[in-house]
Amino acid sequence: MSTRPDGIPVLSVISIGDELASGALLDTNMNRIARQCMSRGCRLETSRVLRDDVDAITDSMKQLAAISDIVVTTGGLGPTDDDLTRDALARVIADGRTELNDEALQWIRQRYRKQGRVMPESNTRQAMQPVGATLHFNANGTAPAITASIGDCRIICLPGPPSEMVPLLEELVIPLMPSSEGVPQPIGITACGIGESAASELLGSLLQRGRDPIIGIRASESLVTATISTMGRTPEDHRRVQEDAERVEQAWSPWAFTREDQSLASVVVRMLREHGATLAVAESCTGGLLGGSIVDVPGSSNVFTGGWITYANQVKHDCLDVPMELIQSNGAVSRQVAAVMALSAARRAGASLSISTTGIAGPGGGSDSKPVGTVYIGLCDTRGPMPETTVGHHVFNGDRQAVRRRTIMTALQMIRWRLMGIDGTDLLGQVREGTAT
Amino acid sequence: MSTRPDGIPVLSVISIGDELASGALLDTNMNRIARQCMSRGCRLETSRVLRDDVDAITDSMKQLAAISDIVVTTGGLGPTDDDLTRDALARVIADGRTELNDEALQWIRQRYRKQGRVMPESNTRQAMQPVGATLHFNANGTAPAITASIGDCRIICLPGPPSEMVPLLEELVIPLMPSSEGVPQPIGITACGIGESAASELLGSLLQRGRDPIIGIRASESLVTATISTMGRTPEDHRRVQEDAERVEQAWSPWAFTREDQSLASVVVRMLREHGATLAVAESCTGGLLGGSIVDVPGSSNVFTGGWITYANQVKHDCLDVPMELIQSNGAVSRQVAAVMALSAARRAGASLSISTTGIAGPGGGSDSKPVGTVYIGLCDTRGPMPETTVGHHVFNGDRQAVRRRTIMTALQMIRWRLMGIDGTDLLGQVREGTAT
Repeated sequence: MSTRPDGIPVLSVISIGDELASGALLDTNMNRIARQCMSRGCRLETSRVLRDDVDAITDSMKQLAAISDIVVTTGGLGPTDDDLTRDALARVIADGRTELNDEALQWIRQRYRKQGRVMPESNTRQAMQPVGATLHFNANGTAPAITASIGDCRIICLPGPPSEMVPLLEELVIPLMPSSEGVPQPIGITACGIGESAASELLGSLLQRGRDPIIGIRASESLVTATISTMGRTPEDHRRVQEDAERVEQAWSPWAFTREDQSLASVVVRMLREHGATLAVAESCTGGLLGGSIVDVPGSSNVFTGGWITYANQVKHDCLDVPMELIQSNGAVSRQVAAVMALSAARRAGASLSISTTGIAGPGGGSDSKPVGTVYIGLCDTRGPMPETTVGHHVFNGDRQAVRRRTIMTALQMIRWRLMGIDGTDLLGQVREGTAT
Repeated sequence: MSTRPDGIPVLSVISIGDELASGALLDTNMNRIARQCMSRGCRLETSRVLRDDVDAITDSMKQLAAISDIVVTTGGLGPTDDDLTRDALARVIADGRTELNDEALQWIRQRYRKQGRVMPESNTRQAMQPVGATLHFNANGTAPAITASIGDCRIICLPGPPSEMVPLLEELVIPLMPSSEGVPQPIGITACGIGESAASELLGSLLQRGRDPIIGIRASESLVTATISTMGRTPEDHRRVQEDAERVEQAWSPWAFTREDQSLASVVVRMLREHGATLAVAESCTGGLLGGSIVDVPGSSNVFTGGWITYANQVKHDCLDVPMELIQSNGAVSRQVAAVMALSAARRAGASLSISTTGIAGPGGGSDSKPVGTVYIGLCDTRGPMPETTVGHHVFNGDRQAVRRRTIMTALQMIRWRLMGIDGTDLLGQVREGTAT
């Protein structure tokens, strides 16, 4: 691979598809590739989004190959007539000539056969390769990736669906980039349950412009992330990134839960395993999403018993022993109901810990005393001589989806703190009883 | 404004900023602008993402102005040294000359004053305009937008933060686009449970290139969407878009479930309501996400009773009456266990319909006879004199998340078909017993 005089390889990206150019789909592939570049000290020169237009794709491949060491394209490798990446590449490197790759065709056929289906004839297209190019099997789809050289530039054509693109990016593009060794990796520290402004204030002068390392903050719903990075690459630069990471973690304790981009659910699953504890859920307003976030973590089956989605009141009563009178007198969205749900779930599932949610996610169902966003989260810990139950009361901002996501993150943080022995009362923006209006 | 011979203005977008090129930030502006183009019958020719590099920005402005009627840039208008959009524009239209706009400077100063602050001197930069360009006040930030002409092309430079970009897009760019009146809105028809290739074959000649309306297909996991659009704007064009939409719906029946961009879950919730039916879930491999997808739909509380997340075998036994012997002899991932889960869930919740999932989402847990991706989905219908239970057997592709999402979509399609009285056996890519290896 040729590199520029400064030794930093230059990479360009072409994202192909009418669905991207028309705005029907957001291009997340470019962003993923860009981050890989960043962490390996490559320079991403430019990215282009093109429609399914073979002339435009051909021109851009030529233009970008002339100024780049690596060109990566995503999309346009499907079986239909508007999938034109391979035709464009054939024009650039082989005067438009393509040839059938028998091995690839067999592989695609077999893939269909394994699923008890017959390969549609249109998929034959995906086994065609521009003369002089190489096909690479795609473990997650039928479209092989294609690699070739355009002069001194390597071009790698990847399929568009992220689940197919990402593994092939790892396999075919990352090895062409310089090793990330010696480049201090940016460290991202993520916290849950604290707002962006409060989190910024805790960092104080660490956020000053012109400082090195640079610390940037971004927030999304219940999470705040600080990224500590530097362009330097001496051991001293490494040390300073590490030191700043520790400063941020201390300032954000106990909200900070990862410096390795792990999800809060995966941190909780790991801690449950370390504590030999099991978890059950009793979900009303989250409707199963809390359990779903736990099950998203590979290996969660050892610590997650399962639980109940008690959306209807009758089911709360029948399955989780919530007295109908309690629901009538306090409402299904209440401290008392959350407590009974948590306790019954732990007992019935035989779990060490359980968590319950009941709330008003909106858009309807709010009242003066319980506005949309009101959520009670119950936690029951059965590990001691007597089960201990605590309930948090929150009024979350945002729409239906946001309220439910905030509920899930807050519930996970409650479990994490319980396992750490931290009393989280007053740390998660709870409504103090009497102050809610 | 000049337009191409076909009367359709051509627009290009340049997104500027190291934070976009490095992947630290996802470029959502391009997507917003693209959707505006689409709905107004403009053609988005190309989009580029560029680093904060004045040469690259200058070159792209020149190149894209030569092939476009409108060039929109976003970003690079801030007060710091790496905000270079105005310098690049000055090079393109005025040999690099800029001049101070006093009115803009006063306005920026005043904006600071209103917040009780003094304008930093660096902000003076934002009041500089390329000679021959016009500044436009930004109600949501300090960076004025800039407009100018490059030959026959209009260029509009907008600030990057979406909260500032969107109102200025409305004010400065939308009026340059043709009115959306008379433009047939693209119709998107989405189907679940059919692959992209098979779906394409069903459409046959409708997908031919050069045809008008244009029908484009995109696929993401279990969903395939056909978008029918035209650049024409006569009543005849309207009629043809509608006719093609009906053709696609017929060809994709019974897989197609919406032509209005509704989620499959919301279609199912509406149908449950129309049928006066209720739904319960019994989830193993989906861990609550199926219930979560139902609860995502506002108003689902009338039709969703709730359910069970029976992740552990003991919970399957204790809560859903699955005999431990059945699990031992057939495995927890089996037709028999799925059937009992569905039946018990419907009975215990008193629901008209219930759906169960049990499968191996991976990465571990697969075997020769039950590879990763093996999923059984049970459906129980208690509306007749006797409960009817059916079970689908699938081997889904993809990683843990993909297998679970495919399971959810397939389960929802099974419910939809049950409510329509359609026998979906053999229509959802099921494994025929005996063919799985």
